[in-house]
Amino acid sequence: MARVICVGLGPGDPRLMSVEAWRTLGRTRHVAYFCKRGARGNARRIVEGLLAEGAAEYPMEYPVTTEIPLSDPEYSRLLAQFYDAWSDRLATLAETEDVAVLCEGDPFLYGSFMHLHSRLNGRAEVEVIPGISGMSGCWTATGTPITWGDDVLTVLPATLTEDELTRRARDTDALVVMKIGRNLAKLKRALAAAGKLDAAWLIVRGTMPEQQIHRLAEVSEAPYFSTAVIHGQGRRP
Amino acid sequence: MARVICVGLGPGDPRLMSVEAWRTLGRTRHVAYFCKRGARGNARRIVEGLLAEGAAEYPMEYPVTTEIPLSDPEYSRLLAQFYDAWSDRLATLAETEDVAVLCEGDPFLYGSFMHLHSRLNGRAEVEVIPGISGMSGCWTATGTPITWGDDVLTVLPATLTEDELTRRARDTDALVVMKIGRNLAKLKRALAAAGKLDAAWLIVRGTMPEQQIHRLAEVSEAPYFSTAVIHGQGRRP
Repeated sequence: MARVICVGLGPGDPRLMSVEAWRTLGRTRHVAYFCKRGARGNARRIVEGLLAEGAAEYPMEYPVTTEIPLSDPEYSRLLAQFYDAWSDRLATLAETEDVAVLCEGDPFLYGSFMHLHSRLNGRAEVEVIPGISGMSGCWTATGTPITWGDDVLTVLPATLTEDELTRRARDTDALVVMKIGRNLAKLKRALAAAGKLDAAWLIVRGTMPEQQIHRLAEVSEAPYFSTAVIHGQGRRP
Repeated sequence: MARVICVGLGPGDPRLMSVEAWRTLGRTRHVAYFCKRGARGNARRIVEGLLAEGAAEYPMEYPVTTEIPLSDPEYSRLLAQFYDAWSDRLATLAETEDVAVLCEGDPFLYGSFMHLHSRLNGRAEVEVIPGISGMSGCWTATGTPITWGDDVLTVLPATLTEDELTRRARDTDALVVMKIGRNLAKLKRALAAAGKLDAAWLIVRGTMPEQQIHRLAEVSEAPYFSTAVIHGQGRRP
């Protein structure tokens, strides 16, 4: 039995991929990746020039992204169907040959691969190659450590309520906020209420050629690939 | 002016080092690393066989590790002196040639390099190559995603008080606890009080040849290189 190998690609700069990921891409003849309908997607962009010659590509096009709200049962139904179909297909391919599935960042940290992973359980051998997380790419880009000594680090999705964001921002040393996009204004209000807006940075497309670093307070728009960080200030001899 | 390059080595398996880290080690003629007095240390062990031929090595031996409590002012004084001396030495070396400083895991996440980094500011050009964090190596080793959908992730040092550990363990979806060692019994009591001990795993030397994975409840001793995780259970279509 061959394997489904989930390849963590890291934060975006191909040189930040692991040696194991790099080698796996260079020898695998089947390569699948998530993307929006009609787009190649960021994961595929990261590995440009690194795939084995003649590798077969399997773009896994999301049936829906932001057209239907997450809370709509139809959203869940469509996504479940999509993951079911692709896990079937990958399991079949892996009966005879290894298949690589590309995953930005670190696959087990908020990655989409986990929805295939849970469905492949018992049907295919699955290997996961971890990656440098997107958030690590972002805090490294700021040139300042995220946690020192005994700092507490909290990672939040900006989809939480404003009150919840405020409460948790107040109650931590270091903070990372993901999934900002449409939640930017809410996040700014929440951090201001926690007295921490002036300490917050927004990193857009961290480690990628278009990387931008802003003070969060000065930003009025945030694309999907953006992460907010507040650095810890812990013990330092 | 040459650079001080902090090379994130990842969680321990050398294949999980980034391509950029690997290349940097292969071409750098000065390599410094932290270690206990009289030991080569784990960082140096990870890069065995990967350094440039004839590279000069600079073991930076901690003047003190667990002989004096962290809270003793003498501990801080000795450490500050040690970091001062090594930042001077690295800055001098970097006047003429690149110097690599080895760092396990992800340098800006609880790494010791930051104490040199803050002292080198303005005196040498510093570059930091991020790495796959130790905690990522650990959660990947469990074969289960750490966070899904809108999960909140909290990262705690086990050095916090028992009450604080309990409170924060209760108030999160996914949990990572570092710096366990002597704090194991306290951590177990805290997680039991939070009703989460049975969901906790202990990963010892994640991704290294001696890797071990245990249910935390069943463990009565934990070495320094161990991390506890509780997986999030968030939204999954």
